[in-house]
Amino acid sequence: MKKNTTPVYYGDYLGLDKILSAQKLQSAKYASPAHDEVLFIIVHQVYELWFKQILHELASIIEAFEGEQVSDEALSTCVHRLNRIIKIQKILNDQISVMETMTPQEFLSFRDYLVPASGFQSIQFKMLEIKLGLKSKYRIDFDKQSFYQRLEEEDRSFLQDLETKPSLFELVESWLERMPLMEFEDFNFWQHYKDATQTMLKSDREIIEDNDTLSDTEKRKELKELENTEAAFAALLDKDKYSLVMESGDFRLNQRALLAALFIHQYSEEPVFNLPFQFLTCLTEIDENMTIWRYRHAMMVQRMLGTKIGTGGSSGHEYLKKTTESNRIFKDFFNMSTFLLAKDCLPSLPVNVKKMLGFSLSSI
Amino acid sequence: MKKNTTPVYYGDYLGLDKILSAQKLQSAKYASPAHDEVLFIIVHQVYELWFKQILHELASIIEAFEGEQVSDEALSTCVHRLNRIIKIQKILNDQISVMETMTPQEFLSFRDYLVPASGFQSIQFKMLEIKLGLKSKYRIDFDKQSFYQRLEEEDRSFLQDLETKPSLFELVESWLERMPLMEFEDFNFWQHYKDATQTMLKSDREIIEDNDTLSDTEKRKELKELENTEAAFAALLDKDKYSLVMESGDFRLNQRALLAALFIHQYSEEPVFNLPFQFLTCLTEIDENMTIWRYRHAMMVQRMLGTKIGTGGSSGHEYLKKTTESNRIFKDFFNMSTFLLAKDCLPSLPVNVKKMLGFSLSSI
Amino acid sequence: MKKNTTPVYYGDYLGLDKILSAQKLQSAKYASPAHDEVLFIIVHQVYELWFKQILHELASIIEAFEGEQVSDEALSTCVHRLNRIIKIQKILNDQISVMETMTPQEFLSFRDYLVPASGFQSIQFKMLEIKLGLKSKYRIDFDKQSFYQRLEEEDRSFLQDLETKPSLFELVESWLERMPLMEFEDFNFWQHYKDATQTMLKSDREIIEDNDTLSDTEKRKELKELENTEAAFAALLDKDKYSLVMESGDFRLNQRALLAALFIHQYSEEPVFNLPFQFLTCLTEIDENMTIWRYRHAMMVQRMLGTKIGTGGSSGHEYLKKTTESNRIFKDFFNMSTFLLAKDCLPSLPVNVKKMLGFSLSSI
Amino acid sequence: MKKNTTPVYYGDYLGLDKILSAQKLQSAKYASPAHDEVLFIIVHQVYELWFKQILHELASIIEAFEGEQVSDEALSTCVHRLNRIIKIQKILNDQISVMETMTPQEFLSFRDYLVPASGFQSIQFKMLEIKLGLKSKYRIDFDKQSFYQRLEEEDRSFLQDLETKPSLFELVESWLERMPLMEFEDFNFWQHYKDATQTMLKSDREIIEDNDTLSDTEKRKELKELENTEAAFAALLDKDKYSLVMESGDFRLNQRALLAALFIHQYSEEPVFNLPFQFLTCLTEIDENMTIWRYRHAMMVQRMLGTKIGTGGSSGHEYLKKTTESNRIFKDFFNMSTFLLAKDCLPSLPVNVKKMLGFSLSSI
Repeated sequence: MKKNTTPVYYGDYLGLDKILSAQKLQSAKYASPAHDEVLFIIVHQVYELWFKQILHELASIIEAFEGEQVSDEALSTCVHRLNRIIKIQKILNDQISVMETMTPQEFLSFRDYLVPASGFQSIQFKMLEIKLGLKSKYRIDFDKQSFYQRLEEEDRSFLQDLETKPSLFELVESWLERMPLMEFEDFNFWQHYKDATQTMLKSDREIIEDNDTLSDTEKRKELKELENTEAAFAALLDKDKYSLVMESGDFRLNQRALLAALFIHQYSEEPVFNLPFQFLTCLTEIDENMTIWRYRHAMMVQRMLGTKIGTGGSSGHEYLKKTTESNRIFKDFFNMSTFLLAKDCLPSLPVNVKKMLGFSLSSI
Repeated sequence: MKKNTTPVYYGDYLGLDKILSAQKLQSAKYASPAHDEVLFIIVHQVYELWFKQILHELASIIEAFEGEQVSDEALSTCVHRLNRIIKIQKILNDQISVMETMTPQEFLSFRDYLVPASGFQSIQFKMLEIKLGLKSKYRIDFDKQSFYQRLEEEDRSFLQDLETKPSLFELVESWLERMPLMEFEDFNFWQHYKDATQTMLKSDREIIEDNDTLSDTEKRKELKELENTEAAFAALLDKDKYSLVMESGDFRLNQRALLAALFIHQYSEEPVFNLPFQFLTCLTEIDENMTIWRYRHAMMVQRMLGTKIGTGGSSGHEYLKKTTESNRIFKDFFNMSTFLLAKDCLPSLPVNVKKMLGFSLSSI
Repeated sequence: MKKNTTPVYYGDYLGLDKILSAQKLQSAKYASPAHDEVLFIIVHQVYELWFKQILHELASIIEAFEGEQVSDEALSTCVHRLNRIIKIQKILNDQISVMETMTPQEFLSFRDYLVPASGFQSIQFKMLEIKLGLKSKYRIDFDKQSFYQRLEEEDRSFLQDLETKPSLFELVESWLERMPLMEFEDFNFWQHYKDATQTMLKSDREIIEDNDTLSDTEKRKELKELENTEAAFAALLDKDKYSLVMESGDFRLNQRALLAALFIHQYSEEPVFNLPFQFLTCLTEIDENMTIWRYRHAMMVQRMLGTKIGTGGSSGHEYLKKTTESNRIFKDFFNMSTFLLAKDCLPSLPVNVKKMLGFSLSSI
Repeated sequence: MKKNTTPVYYGDYLGLDKILSAQKLQSAKYASPAHDEVLFIIVHQVYELWFKQILHELASIIEAFEGEQVSDEALSTCVHRLNRIIKIQKILNDQISVMETMTPQEFLSFRDYLVPASGFQSIQFKMLEIKLGLKSKYRIDFDKQSFYQRLEEEDRSFLQDLETKPSLFELVESWLERMPLMEFEDFNFWQHYKDATQTMLKSDREIIEDNDTLSDTEKRKELKELENTEAAFAALLDKDKYSLVMESGDFRLNQRALLAALFIHQYSEEPVFNLPFQFLTCLTEIDENMTIWRYRHAMMVQRMLGTKIGTGGSSGHEYLKKTTESNRIFKDFFNMSTFLLAKDCLPSLPVNVKKMLGFSLSSI
């Protein structure tokens, strides 16, 4: 490894001249500088730096999944990087508490000077959403509209172009589809599965019917929900029914990919599934953390503005709350437990299958 | 201070014989013990211990507010204890991450043995809600019903009795009503306020109308919302209109109390308002933390069960998400910013008023 | 309030062109870009942004304390801003976990290109230390030396100039000295105090002597420590002894200031002391958080480098651990509990004194 | 899966009658109940519940490692459970902030009634230390002595018995020793390694010598440290030198185990090493979190008591700080980076070796 030839100085290396001079107060242009506008700017800059980091990790993961196959080494690196994203998200969520040290009155001292800037104009956040898989077709109507119209032309076309590239969601879907593990000779896993779910659903029905703490109305309600669950199970293994559910939006992954993911969840302790299971779990957590961030962000905006309009001319918190649930990308993994069977309801894997799923080397 | 006469031993003092022997696995009664049921039990026991601590602090605060007046020393103690509750809530929210280390499949290994136990049966959590101010009349219909029917008779009547006692919400409302600070001779604050809000609303209207990044539809939508805000302002200082809004549920505090709270927020830097402002801010945060807890809890339940029914025979996460927003107690403080004016729109307080709000001793 | 005349765009407002283009990899100059160097740069940039924010708050607090007196409004604002610093410090401490997602091997892939840059060259961190009160004379020898020699001339003279300006520590010391509250007619608090401490120390001696779980060696050790405590108490009210202890470095505040701080702690529930007590508690927490940061930072460096040298050519973690304890600024507040008496050992304040410490307005 | 035959009620299931009645105030026996003693008790009870959970996980991991070999499924489960311990530790560290809401004065209101109880008497904490690997021989002298003498006879003999059983440290050491992966035909990894380290150390020496920001004294100091590092490297591959270093306490793992751990760290991205690497990383983090806990705990005790003696009759914080560094169990993993080589200094693994380290199934 060569060494650097020119000595490096901390401040130069980090570009601190640029970073630390990039806080230009709007309030200072029109009145005396508002003390708290500095916090407002710096919090947002920190968010953008972290977004850059997340996008950097994400790009490398997308690249790994764009190839024809994902090697185990590559998957291991991807899991490592997704875990880093998760740690960063924890910080993103926690640092809302710093912004919340700004009282609504302090915010009012410079809010009016920011019109019509808005967090909706964060290109990196939109990139993050799109790259993860939140393309326009999945957005709610209001979001679809307003998504692009607030942006300058250059930014808009950049993002529109990004929409045409494969997202992580799409790449993971393809990768799951390629899994060769669902059917083996002499071992029809899905028949076992079908039988076991029948038993489980029957037992769930009994739990509801025997529950004396429920009123009749509640019981009817619960049985209705059970029927929905039964329908979901029925759709799982039936191509046509599956398509219908997918159109309704209740599934986002295609059938083959969902079944592969389910198999990984069911047999997660098999060595060969260990990394894939960790990978899917990471995606689930990233989605969950993003949802928590949306929710807490909406609360923060509400606390800061009440029903006042935001600087972008819209009451942000209403919109933000709407997108909290709708903008979930990997919700199929999140809902996976609907279809999971307890370990003792699962068939044991035949020896030859088990062997195939292990390492070449025996364990020590 | 006397000393103890019998030496104290750590384990005895903490009752560890009781605490550490209270983990009885249901799975062990019917099958081999499920490893993860221990986690399930201990997490819930930790929650209940913290609930006990929160209730202990809450009881002392309620007691302080039940008297005819709240001394400054008492208020100082209350703020200190509310801050403790807030720190505990942070832990309650963070420790969801521990429960989330249990995979859905691990949960399935003992779920069926717990029927029909349910977190809805936590008496301490219900006590907490009721004591804060979430009495039956404020609950959504489904919650009203199911609230009591899952409980054993003794618990039910205990809680129903608690509903008849003054909640912290009610006591704080009375305390705010007693504030003598709203009108002074020669200084009609509320007239100033009225004029200033007219100006602000007019300016907000212009912001919307001049915002070219909004489509016509969006503009109409924003203007409609502005009208709602204008109506809210109009109701603020008009007894009859206020009553109507209160009936709709948009205000929970009565008019006099809300105005007092607003005044405290507007002049929070006056020494006499420092503690009251901290007190109201604590209540706002407690409400916010409880809402975050409800939301994260709902997510955790969804991740664990998907659309499967819970042990109590209902799909918990749907219910939990419904109550996230509806069960907010101090939302008037949370929405207070709707009515706040920027500092430079506020009239300066006359010298005699300012003096009245300060200390006897001058500052050093 | 005027509005802005030129519309603001999110990315321009935040200077994102500068912020997001300031990640120049050293590795890219000499080899293929090291994936993890981006993390290394961004984490440090985020730290520097937060440092800027902390320095911004600190500057406003120092300004408030530079005047002849600190009004209650000003003190209230200072407490608010110190609390903000505390929240930021929590984030600074937590985000070490993000840096720790970089494995030692990943760090090795670009470490050699950074020579001789070092975190010791962070001007803002040094500013923070000096402004809080860590001037050269308080630094340990190694730190004194290396402090300046790694810096470029301009930075060095900037910091040396800063050393000549009053630090927050010095300003707070003066403010405490000005407190008029220590002696009142007809009420000699310090005589009461002296008597009460005698009783307490006698009781502590008995606790040790009667403790049968201690070995003789341990008992001797404990009694020796008690003698130190007795000596500290003796020094507290004796000018000459106090000076000696101060020279030894065990006290940093002068006697008058320390006694004022002690009085505030003893009667913290009196309205007039409420804010001063919060203020001193904030300083204590800031010091504690900085100490935790130093400790965790040292651990992280050790984990990353083992006993390898750092990029600055020194094994950072040894040095960092040394400064963890020595570089504490407000340790007198941290050790305050040594001198605190239990409430029931304290004399009640006479009515006239109590009245003087309250508000003009009676409580409601 | 059978269902339960007797319906389960939340409070009964969790043993809440025992849990919530186990808060017996000592202050109430001798004076009026101290409000904050409830917090003191509950915080400790929560700690003990979490300790129980950690011990439960630890027991299952120890059991898995006691067998003749550790299957990959078992290792996967162990990693999962270590990650759970890590999450719990985060909570343990964070909840110190709850205890810190108790002011020193509040603590003084009941401290004297607790004599001579002490946190040193927590049997579960001692179990945790011993089971992880902190047996008596590794404790510092003071800790060795005081460890047992404060305990009742039954507890003492229970722990002394535990010392005779294999700790996790010992079991992991054996497991690493069994690793067959260090030498392959036609591939002498350790010769490569030796050569590469020579180059690295030479380069480090140049970095120091060329660093003009260091004074002569500093340079000498750094070169002295480099010599220590060189000696450590020399010891690594030399049985006799290794033994000497081990006696000095700088290594705790035996040579073969340390080399195996080093190999795992160097090639962590190979599929077969993925889980072992995660496993060792978890142990490193558990050790780090425990160290942070010790440090923060010591700070908290200092803040609460200053130099006053604790209830157990000793000034806890001095002792606690001493054990912070000395009581580290897996410090060899923590210091592993000393011996790590950058990826580009490592020899590529031969194809046949690489194949052996992969899965039977090719990647998808």
